Amino acid sequence: MASLKSRLEHSITPVALRSYLAEFISTFLFVFAAIGATMSSRKMMPDASSDSSSLVAVAVAIALSLSVTVYIAVDISGGHVNPAVTFGRAVGGHITIPMAIFYWVSQMLGSVMACLLLKTTTVGQQVPVHAIQHEMTGFGAAILEGVMTFALVYTVYASADPRKGAMGSIGPLAIGFIVGANVLASGPFTGGSMNPAVSFGAAVIGGSFKNQAVYWIGPLVGAAIAGIVYDNVVFPADMPDPVRGVSDGVGV
Amino acid sequence: MASLKSRLEHSITPVALRSYLAEFISTFLFVFAAIGATMSSRKMMPDASSDSSSLVAVAVAIALSLSVTVYIAVDISGGHVNPAVTFGRAVGGHITIPMAIFYWVSQMLGSVMACLLLKTTTVGQQVPVHAIQHEMTGFGAAILEGVMTFALVYTVYASADPRKGAMGSIGPLAIGFIVGANVLASGPFTGGSMNPAVSFGAAVIGGSFKNQAVYWIGPLVGAAIAGIVYDNVVFPADMPDPVRGVSDGVGV
Amino acid sequence: MASLKSRLEHSITPVALRSYLAEFISTFLFVFAAIGATMSSRKMMPDASSDSSSLVAVAVAIALSLSVTVYIAVDISGGHVNPAVTFGRAVGGHITIPMAIFYWVSQMLGSVMACLLLKTTTVGQQVPVHAIQHEMTGFGAAILEGVMTFALVYTVYASADPRKGAMGSIGPLAIGFIVGANVLASGPFTGGSMNPAVSFGAAVIGGSFKNQAVYWIGPLVGAAIAGIVYDNVVFPADMPDPVRGVSDGVGV
Amino acid sequence: MASLKSRLEHSITPVALRSYLAEFISTFLFVFAAIGATMSSRKMMPDASSDSSSLVAVAVAIALSLSVTVYIAVDISGGHVNPAVTFGRAVGGHITIPMAIFYWVSQMLGSVMACLLLKTTTVGQQVPVHAIQHEMTGFGAAILEGVMTFALVYTVYASADPRKGAMGSIGPLAIGFIVGANVLASGPFTGGSMNPAVSFGAAVIGGSFKNQAVYWIGPLVGAAIAGIVYDNVVFPADMPDPVRGVSDGVGV
Repeated sequence: MASLKSRLEHSITPVALRSYLAEFISTFLFVFAAIGATMSSRKMMPDASSDSSSLVAVAVAIALSLSVTVYIAVDISGGHVNPAVTFGRAVGGHITIPMAIFYWVSQMLGSVMACLLLKTTTVGQQVPVHAIQHEMTGFGAAILEGVMTFALVYTVYASADPRKGAMGSIGPLAIGFIVGANVLASGPFTGGSMNPAVSFGAAVIGGSFKNQAVYWIGPLVGAAIAGIVYDNVVFPADMPDPVRGVSDGVGV
Repeated sequence: MASLKSRLEHSITPVALRSYLAEFISTFLFVFAAIGATMSSRKMMPDASSDSSSLVAVAVAIALSLSVTVYIAVDISGGHVNPAVTFGRAVGGHITIPMAIFYWVSQMLGSVMACLLLKTTTVGQQVPVHAIQHEMTGFGAAILEGVMTFALVYTVYASADPRKGAMGSIGPLAIGFIVGANVLASGPFTGGSMNPAVSFGAAVIGGSFKNQAVYWIGPLVGAAIAGIVYDNVVFPADMPDPVRGVSDGVGV
Repeated sequence: MASLKSRLEHSITPVALRSYLAEFISTFLFVFAAIGATMSSRKMMPDASSDSSSLVAVAVAIALSLSVTVYIAVDISGGHVNPAVTFGRAVGGHITIPMAIFYWVSQMLGSVMACLLLKTTTVGQQVPVHAIQHEMTGFGAAILEGVMTFALVYTVYASADPRKGAMGSIGPLAIGFIVGANVLASGPFTGGSMNPAVSFGAAVIGGSFKNQAVYWIGPLVGAAIAGIVYDNVVFPADMPDPVRGVSDGVGV
Repeated sequence: MASLKSRLEHSITPVALRSYLAEFISTFLFVFAAIGATMSSRKMMPDASSDSSSLVAVAVAIALSLSVTVYIAVDISGGHVNPAVTFGRAVGGHITIPMAIFYWVSQMLGSVMACLLLKTTTVGQQVPVHAIQHEMTGFGAAILEGVMTFALVYTVYASADPRKGAMGSIGPLAIGFIVGANVLASGPFTGGSMNPAVSFGAAVIGGSFKNQAVYWIGPLVGAAIAGIVYDNVVFPADMPDPVRGVSDGVGV
């Protein structure tokens, strides 16, 4: 809505600085719950990576905490909580490049600090790093992560669309729920990241950057395609809604 | 609301083509999560079909991902994501036959492609095909699938009813939740499909069409009955709402 | 809102008959999912009654299916789906006694038919009957069931309160969620019924009426207290809302 | 909104007394479900504290029951259900000190009575007391509890912010969900309390006050920081919302 110029000017205003802080807080709290739940499972069951109830525990923690951390930030920063989402929104022109870079820094800083806090307080526990099942190729894993991030970013676009009307109010739940579902679908194959900040923070504190590229390239490509498809093909802005017309909604 | 004639003309318009694409994308993403979660469970536990936590994992993945894939498509295509839902809506005159046929093709194509993607990326994994517990008859299984699809399509009708008012905004959650609950109720008996597109896609890529008829006849009959009962018996359009009158709602 | 006289006249009108049908359909579909999930767990794990993941499966099925079956009926019948809720609403004068009796008949008929369907289609499976852990007294079990039904009916009152405003739209979720939570709290102690219709249907088809009184007296007493406390003590109708005043809401 | 003076006068008015009763009822029902679910898990599995599916059972019970107990009280008392939330709201000036003290008494009374009821009805079961994993320090545990309570109270602030608009209607779900997620993250480390009333009630009836200070200091400090950060840094009241301006919302 605002022109590109006014957006650029906003990247160092108080409003913008508060957006970065909101992204930092939400990403910190999300990674705390997501990585914490994985560490809890491993604490209770050393063989947690081959146990369905451990995967349910992690997926439920991710679905619930992502819903909430998006919810608490959505009014000020848009509630990205994920560099791939920020990239996908930037591709569609919904955030300027300078602001997107500050978003990335805030998100990665939040993730690293959450992993560091978990490691220091839970004495003797390892921070788990995303890993690919040994039979799979890196290419196959990147495709899986890309498809799942496509689902996430497409949902972000739908939630932020003013044409959603009253239904926009459950947008943060939708965003958390699709990621939780896909953690259940991909857990033993790729770990189900869909979020380069989580993979990065875990790698920094866990001490292994093996396959890190997979968790960046897959999600970023999937996010970009989602933004392009949503804005240009499925639901272009000049397209009248067949049910309600182009009325302005109340939602996100 | 629109006349039958105008609906027919819409089956090849840009709006209609975008509806088919929305159904393709949502069905693809739903089947990816639903079948992916089943494959994850089997990867972790070879005996997953007799384990409660594996059934919880699959049911939660289905409840969450169906809620979201309905949510992202509901504004443009109605968010069917299921040939039985499309059939049930066609029976009630809410979608024309030509459009319904394009919906079916889009949904089945989406399902087949999702199963194909899962098979190729997760090297060496089998795509699981819906199967009936050996003590049950095909007739009994079709009845179970029919009753559960009745629940689904009845919920779709209720969610799309403008008389729901503000409560229409949680419609997509209701649709996903009732299917998730019924997966838990029927998992070890029929596999809990309620969706011919999912059963079809899994059969094509998994390579077995045994009992496929059960997963078409049961859901289609249940869906048709739901549409007829909702529109004509429980909640006819000329029936004043005892609580709020016939006011137009904001919802779906 | 309507006078008692006009409510009495409504007990044989088409609107009333449709309310009974709505209660029948919703109770049938709820019991199908709730009892079906218990049978699924026992089919997979013979020792399901001492397994946490089986209890999670049953509780999730109940939380999700009750949310949805309340949601689909709330506009026409109020979405009771439970004789204790109907009783609690009658105590507060929100439904007339003649209508409440027809509600009870519809709910119990729906429950018996759902259990019968499950028994006949899932060849050789037993319909599980609610039972009390052997160390507990019937009195203690009735108190537990009563407290949990108090929580349910209190939530029903809060959800139906027009002062809830926009928040009324998540009322059906709240109703399903509190029952799901309390199934987790009471599973191995009383089975977590809170619903005489479910206990009755399971007893008729399962063939055991042992302790049936517990599952009627506890819930009915708890429901009555909830109605009295909500309407007269916590939130009387002539009480201005400290936050928003007595404005009329949009919700249930 | 009301001045401090009028708030003080309210601490013994009928409206205030009803707020205390609402807090008592909600805390009683929440602790009943939360502690009951832990007792259920231990009844079924003696080694429940090292089992993922037991942790899922407890976390789901807490997420669902907290959502609902906040929901039923939010209109009258604000739906704190937790002394740390009351403290965090008092720090921000959203509740007066005299009222906050009555809230605390109501919450602790409700918790003790719920634990007592559970102990007496479930003959021979122990009420479980929050405990710290033996490798961890009390300081580390207090930090974990503090960070998680920060997440909770920050979410309470966001939910109660009128700028949330229509999205305020899912606030109670957000509050329950973030606590459920963090129970999964911290279960085997600190037990995941985030609520001094729960820890206090369990300690009184369970008979052990070991480490009780951890479950008061951590949450209270985290709650105070959340209130200060939300109101003064991230989202000050005089800050225009970048998306919607300072329009008044419909929400909580």
